[in-house]
Amino acid sequence: MKFELKGKIIFSKELNEDAQKDISEVLDNSREIFLKGVPEGKENEASKIINYDFDGKELKLNIVSGTYARAHEALMRLKKPIMEKIGKKHKTGIRDIIIEHYEITIPAEKQNLENIKDIKVPECETEIDYNNNAVKIIFENIGDSELKRNIVDRAIKFVRNELEKGEEKDLTFDVCAIAPGTIVSEYKAKREITFDKDPTEVAEKLGWVKRFVGKGQWFYTPPITKLFRAFEELIMEECVNKIGYNECLFPKLIPLEVMYKMRYLEGLPEGMYYVCPPKRDPEMFREFVNEMMIKKEIPIHKLNDLLRNPGYVLAPAQCEPFYQFFDHELVDIDNPIKFVDKSGWTYRWEGGGAKGLDRVNEFLRIECVELGSPEFVEKTRDETLKYAEKLAEKLDLEYWTEVGDDPFYLEGRKKEDRNIEFPEIPKYEMRLWLPHIKDERKGVAVTSANVHGTHFVEGFGIRDYKGRKVWTGCTGYGLTRWVVGFLAQYGFNYEDWPELVQKKIGKMPEIPKVITWP
Amino acid sequence: MKFELKGKIIFSKELNEDAQKDISEVLDNSREIFLKGVPEGKENEASKIINYDFDGKELKLNIVSGTYARAHEALMRLKKPIMEKIGKKHKTGIRDIIIEHYEITIPAEKQNLENIKDIKVPECETEIDYNNNAVKIIFENIGDSELKRNIVDRAIKFVRNELEKGEEKDLTFDVCAIAPGTIVSEYKAKREITFDKDPTEVAEKLGWVKRFVGKGQWFYTPPITKLFRAFEELIMEECVNKIGYNECLFPKLIPLEVMYKMRYLEGLPEGMYYVCPPKRDPEMFREFVNEMMIKKEIPIHKLNDLLRNPGYVLAPAQCEPFYQFFDHELVDIDNPIKFVDKSGWTYRWEGGGAKGLDRVNEFLRIECVELGSPEFVEKTRDETLKYAEKLAEKLDLEYWTEVGDDPFYLEGRKKEDRNIEFPEIPKYEMRLWLPHIKDERKGVAVTSANVHGTHFVEGFGIRDYKGRKVWTGCTGYGLTRWVVGFLAQYGFNYEDWPELVQKKIGKMPEIPKVITWP
Repeated sequence: MKFELKGKIIFSKELNEDAQKDISEVLDNSREIFLKGVPEGKENEASKIINYDFDGKELKLNIVSGTYARAHEALMRLKKPIMEKIGKKHKTGIRDIIIEHYEITIPAEKQNLENIKDIKVPECETEIDYNNNAVKIIFENIGDSELKRNIVDRAIKFVRNELEKGEEKDLTFDVCAIAPGTIVSEYKAKREITFDKDPTEVAEKLGWVKRFVGKGQWFYTPPITKLFRAFEELIMEECVNKIGYNECLFPKLIPLEVMYKMRYLEGLPEGMYYVCPPKRDPEMFREFVNEMMIKKEIPIHKLNDLLRNPGYVLAPAQCEPFYQFFDHELVDIDNPIKFVDKSGWTYRWEGGGAKGLDRVNEFLRIECVELGSPEFVEKTRDETLKYAEKLAEKLDLEYWTEVGDDPFYLEGRKKEDRNIEFPEIPKYEMRLWLPHIKDERKGVAVTSANVHGTHFVEGFGIRDYKGRKVWTGCTGYGLTRWVVGFLAQYGFNYEDWPELVQKKIGKMPEIPKVITWP
Repeated sequence: MKFELKGKIIFSKELNEDAQKDISEVLDNSREIFLKGVPEGKENEASKIINYDFDGKELKLNIVSGTYARAHEALMRLKKPIMEKIGKKHKTGIRDIIIEHYEITIPAEKQNLENIKDIKVPECETEIDYNNNAVKIIFENIGDSELKRNIVDRAIKFVRNELEKGEEKDLTFDVCAIAPGTIVSEYKAKREITFDKDPTEVAEKLGWVKRFVGKGQWFYTPPITKLFRAFEELIMEECVNKIGYNECLFPKLIPLEVMYKMRYLEGLPEGMYYVCPPKRDPEMFREFVNEMMIKKEIPIHKLNDLLRNPGYVLAPAQCEPFYQFFDHELVDIDNPIKFVDKSGWTYRWEGGGAKGLDRVNEFLRIECVELGSPEFVEKTRDETLKYAEKLAEKLDLEYWTEVGDDPFYLEGRKKEDRNIEFPEIPKYEMRLWLPHIKDERKGVAVTSANVHGTHFVEGFGIRDYKGRKVWTGCTGYGLTRWVVGFLAQYGFNYEDWPELVQKKIGKMPEIPKVITWP
């Protein structure tokens, strides 16, 4: 590695010639200071001062180094000897030390550079040098506090991790018996699909949806809401009820401890919304309100002080309460469980990723969860998928089903240290074709059918009273996604829609009459 | 009022004698500058410079005034004439103007001083002078930016409000034409009501619900879920659809700015769950996960650092997105709007108050919202209530309706400084009798029918394109509450239930067979 540093030491007052001479002396003998702790034979990797000069209160320096006693450490090492030399004698102190520009070159394997082509390293810029097979990370204007936070080492470590990722496969790939991405079934529409617009754009133009202020959120107006309800009924009648799930109402505000037991906090902590209850402090709240009323803005700092630690997340998977329900209970797999929930919204924090109606932060889903013997769970899961495919065929919706590469309960995870049984196929994913995406054959995932093996049973201490194997599985029917896929293939004219859908809807409602919208 | 100011004007460089002379000239003739805009006869209330002196780059001043051309305004007024005098001539500019110490004395009625004995005025200190019946507010080191934010006037206004409070009740009581609590209609059950158990206890014993880990949250199992759905259908058919509401899907994660515009952050900030998105910092999250895996516990401190400021709340009122939908739109009250949402859970932080099934933190509700002329809104609101009462009578449920004392949009609020039209009756509340509560006649609030006047229209800048009056109203049918009231009066035997409900339910599902539960 190579470290190239351009920085300055700012003193409490102008440096007269005398002081400059004293400092120069320290710098010219800095070699031994920089060699401290450098292993034998590595001396040439230690820091060197390339040049320096004085400018009023400032001492400007260029330092380069290899991996040992690195440039930013070298700069800090100068502090003490310089002060010893001039502090008393010239009544001068060091006000600040600033690294104006810091380039660190990390060599890499050619084949690994691909893994990081759009890498984003916190708090610095990155460049990939394909000619010399290296990654450059560049810091601008960092000082003591940043160095204390050790951002340099963090950034280097981060880049290395990303580079190595190439070799280390996700847990999913070890588990799957069939390669993730393999297409296991497919259906081509009988009719000719002519609609080729982006359903989000059309829906917005028509006023079927209106962008909400929150990221990745929409306000769904009456026409599209009717379509949601139609698909909810269709999926319940054509899939869920045929398999005999019983409806429950699952809570949607999930305590962190539950997410921990699910291992979700381990897999995807950056993909959730966190929820904090308020403290019990009427007086503080009164102050908060007073300040807000006077400043005519929300005093966020005060609000922060008024909140407890995050205690919950907004349900990302929807099935969380199911496992908690059976937490440390004795079950009887001769009476297997089939629950379904469609009681409300679930949430994912997509960061910048949210776009259109198909990739949203807030979405509706019909969630089926089952618990029983491995055979029962796998059979049930397969049924949820089979009926979903049948429904698509009834509606002549073009789809394909593939082996999923990111079962939610394995997502982001590398290792499984516990002794868990995994199914041969953790996840099937059914996708409806999106004709408006021309350059590639893309589909929106409308049904995700998962088997967890003993993953959750283990995490929640659920056991069969005769000690027999207990597995769980879940299938999510993405209501929002079904509607998007349907509109993408059928367009927005009620007359063009299949009778099955028309019947469910009856008369299409109008959008509200607003002068300035849509 | 009296304003006593100690401040300074800081110049770009030392002021030589010459410059000092020029500035003194301005100051000595400042009288007319300060008299600008002061009404005749009030001249003695205008600002006066008590004394001043020069100190290096600074000009130090003491200014006092009455209510006209007040001291801090006077100080600012000096800027221009001084610059005109010395700017070019001495190549000197004004760097900064600082009020080091500012005392404002506000006279008050003796009997009102009590109301404010522990008053906290943002951004300044306060002293109460009982001898002279006055309140002193004292600012330290404020400058241009604070004055631009107009904190002085706001603080004075704030103190005055607090002083007047003594005489004033909650806003609701000013608004209501009929005394809150007045019963406006009532219905006695035809049949004899014999069931007298606490529905929560029975439901728990029977396994119709199971306590969830989160405070005030429940897992609702198949039997009671069926009852929820039955009441959802009944309320839609017997009330909502008869009035002709169109269903929409309202977001349930509400940005703080929306709550601010609703004045809800002012009224009930301690009654909501706050939501924070995660930061974009993969490396930090990796560390978080690593620490969690090693310690086998959630490192909350680390998690705190990984979250952004609270940006949302969980919808407490359910109608929030409706007003945001029309934010600054031009509407046509000849095409009034009737929207209904039943898409998911809403939330209240009840703190210690959560208990049983009727007072929960997470609940389901059918929310109707309307926008149009005052007549339209009041008529529609009254219909939502009338049909709810009819439904209760059809089901022979004993109820009464009273004038509400806490319309959600006025809750916790004392003052309305904007020019808002309020309805005569902001809120009606319909309650189902709870027979198991013996010592008093208590009811669970199942329907809350509100008219807001121009409260939200004002807050969200919604206007009619012909400039006619626009009002809004909303009615919440508390699904959870209807079910609780029904079970409290009818008990848990399907056979005892009214046919209307039985028909909706069809066959009652069983609870899941678990060895160790219920």
